[in-house]
Amino acid sequence: MEAPILEHVLVQLRNALERDDLVGAANIVEALRPADQADLFNELDEDQQRALLAKIAPEDSADILEELDDEAVAELISSLSDEALVSIMDEMEPDEAADLLGDMAPERARELISRLEDPDEVRPLLLHSDETAGGLMTTEYLALRRRMTAAEAIEAIRRWQPSEETIYYLFVVDQHGRLSGVMNLRQLIVADPRTRMMDIMDPKVISVQADIDQEEAARIMKRYDLLALPVVDANNTLLGVITFDDVIDVLEEEASEDMQRMGGAEPLERAYLDTSPLIITRKRIGWLLVLFVTATLTGSVMRLFQYEMQAVVSLAIFIPLLIGTGGNAGSQTTATIIRSLATGDIEPNDVFRVWWHEARVGILLGMGMAAAAYIRAITWEPNPALALTVSTAIMTLVLWATGVGSVLPLVAAKMGIDPALVSGPLMSTLVDATGLFIYFSIARLILGL
Amino acid sequence: MEAPILEHVLVQLRNALERDDLVGAANIVEALRPADQADLFNELDEDQQRALLAKIAPEDSADILEELDDEAVAELISSLSDEALVSIMDEMEPDEAADLLGDMAPERARELISRLEDPDEVRPLLLHSDETAGGLMTTEYLALRRRMTAAEAIEAIRRWQPSEETIYYLFVVDQHGRLSGVMNLRQLIVADPRTRMMDIMDPKVISVQADIDQEEAARIMKRYDLLALPVVDANNTLLGVITFDDVIDVLEEEASEDMQRMGGAEPLERAYLDTSPLIITRKRIGWLLVLFVTATLTGSVMRLFQYEMQAVVSLAIFIPLLIGTGGNAGSQTTATIIRSLATGDIEPNDVFRVWWHEARVGILLGMGMAAAAYIRAITWEPNPALALTVSTAIMTLVLWATGVGSVLPLVAAKMGIDPALVSGPLMSTLVDATGLFIYFSIARLILGL
Repeated sequence: MEAPILEHVLVQLRNALERDDLVGAANIVEALRPADQADLFNELDEDQQRALLAKIAPEDSADILEELDDEAVAELISSLSDEALVSIMDEMEPDEAADLLGDMAPERARELISRLEDPDEVRPLLLHSDETAGGLMTTEYLALRRRMTAAEAIEAIRRWQPSEETIYYLFVVDQHGRLSGVMNLRQLIVADPRTRMMDIMDPKVISVQADIDQEEAARIMKRYDLLALPVVDANNTLLGVITFDDVIDVLEEEASEDMQRMGGAEPLERAYLDTSPLIITRKRIGWLLVLFVTATLTGSVMRLFQYEMQAVVSLAIFIPLLIGTGGNAGSQTTATIIRSLATGDIEPNDVFRVWWHEARVGILLGMGMAAAAYIRAITWEPNPALALTVSTAIMTLVLWATGVGSVLPLVAAKMGIDPALVSGPLMSTLVDATGLFIYFSIARLILGL
Repeated sequence: MEAPILEHVLVQLRNALERDDLVGAANIVEALRPADQADLFNELDEDQQRALLAKIAPEDSADILEELDDEAVAELISSLSDEALVSIMDEMEPDEAADLLGDMAPERARELISRLEDPDEVRPLLLHSDETAGGLMTTEYLALRRRMTAAEAIEAIRRWQPSEETIYYLFVVDQHGRLSGVMNLRQLIVADPRTRMMDIMDPKVISVQADIDQEEAARIMKRYDLLALPVVDANNTLLGVITFDDVIDVLEEEASEDMQRMGGAEPLERAYLDTSPLIITRKRIGWLLVLFVTATLTGSVMRLFQYEMQAVVSLAIFIPLLIGTGGNAGSQTTATIIRSLATGDIEPNDVFRVWWHEARVGILLGMGMAAAAYIRAITWEPNPALALTVSTAIMTLVLWATGVGSVLPLVAAKMGIDPALVSGPLMSTLVDATGLFIYFSIARLILGL
């Protein structure tokens, strides 16, 4: 629905820019929503972007910069004047402005902060690391006092001009700024105008400390369906608020990281096409080399059993089948376990329950695959002993792979290592080597080599 | 932070239940938040659950049933009386009540609907399929009329007792019930009491048709940071509203499905530990068998080159290394591409740009891995021709794997097939077979076999 409309607008915008009609171009951009503005902006070349950014209203520029990728933003801001940048940053949400400052040279950042309209909104946000609740929160919130009346609170809301994300929950603090309750806008407007905040608010407010991981904060908001989560310090002083739009971003980022790690690559920090091939290569080659080294293990196992392979050459032909099935059975398990850990369906302490669950799955899957393997082997080479070897090996291997695939991520999580990191390709390469060892040992037994 | 507290409460709750103090037990449960209530509830046995459900207030029972897994709910409702169930469903949000009815025997569902307080809120929701915007929406929203004044609207909000998710956006309809604008609660309360809705509202409201996919609706809400998205029919008549809490659930579900498909398993419909080993086995064995058959391709390629393997037995030793590296390079690529497709960073039409991006990554990665392979080969067997064979093969294989890994998911997406489905293990098994073919062909050339 959206895409064709945007393409049409892009043509209009390019025409205006070619005619040097900057006012017309600015009008086209200003009529759009931020996400669409950013998409259009990405299609322009750098000179056009710069020219346009100077012409459109600072609040629209702020919206666009908030939506653009970090790399694109870094290029743009290096070419903007301090004056233009300050007026844009004044229109940004404080957490976005702080992120922008964090990406600049420290001297320029210091200089720009002091020229902001409200530097004290931004400065405390620079203290928290990017991945924590403190790094995610905004300081743009309205804190009401316990003894305020509903009428006074509504008056305060009228005077205050917040951005849309931050108006739905209202937080109440005591005279020391300590968080003491929460209410939503509806509760406020249906209350008698003379009621005090302390009598309307819900004192059982969920909050988090500034230094907890941003994922944990996002999980809490999802669990309790919260639109906003207050962030406090050790004394329960209200420092800021995390809003619902950030939660979705954090959960999506987490899923992307897990998925890429499962695939055996370090997660990219920017959008795929905005990341240079050199950086993508750097994110991948480390794991490829590690896996290469572990794969030489598999080669070593084969060298160990060279005599058996020469005696029965057909043994080699079943290797891809066996290690393929073992690796696949293991990936199926880890993918489910890692995702269940991420969504909170299982916890690292569930290791025994999960293993027992997987063991039963492994037995069922192993029996099915053993039957398939027997049929395949006997039709390839009419040798019942070889077919028995292959099907016994595949049964053992599937059981082993589901076991390793279920226990490894949970043990990693318990040790504080990202489970997606130790799993995926690493797991299957390990299963390959041990699987071959199992295969040849069974071959020795059954074929009497 | 939460977990130890819950454990403590669970002990109290169990004590109360053992003393048959159902009132005390109900009080403990009613003091908690829905997600915590559901967690505690899951720890009780079925008799305790039934006894407790009969005692706690219907609105708390409704909250608990909304949070529990489908399977647990199905068991519970089969043991509840129609009367108890109707009073619980009256407290549920209409979309949740509709989901519950959808899981019952049709006769019981029909009987129960007619006894609901407001059957017309629920009935239209039963018409839409689960995976569409219509299946996700709720009919609990307040539609204001264009000519209403702000004072009248606030009065309507006071009289209306909505659940928390649905109060932040207010939708405005014309006399035919067609959607004509949106505003938020803050805009309403800061407006002059005599202003009419048509003058406060934003007429540029984003809406979706009831039959679009729920993922598409969720993506739109994420893109534009919407708390609620109106759902309309072909005449633009307002049918319902999708709220922000559903968006997170849909996006998380989508990420889980992709991850499990990447791992080569059909996604589970329920939480992992709530799914029986038999069902898990059924979700996995299909793909394992398909992959088994494709892996026999690899075996066939090896049979094709049996003569070469007998001539140079060392060729076999490098097979795990080669197909491992090819498979891993391919998974790295597909994981990134599938996730970028899901988050909208790339589109199916970008196939050429993406391939060109990956081709450059493939050349860099291939050169690095070729160097590593040469060193490994020459230290294993001091045979430069063999080492050259292995490193040329690995270079070609990596380039081939990144190419297939980038193009396959995009082509699948373009054909309307879930890209995660055709990728993952299937891709690596295909790369295995073709990779071996490439390897032996290069060996023939270089080693002159």
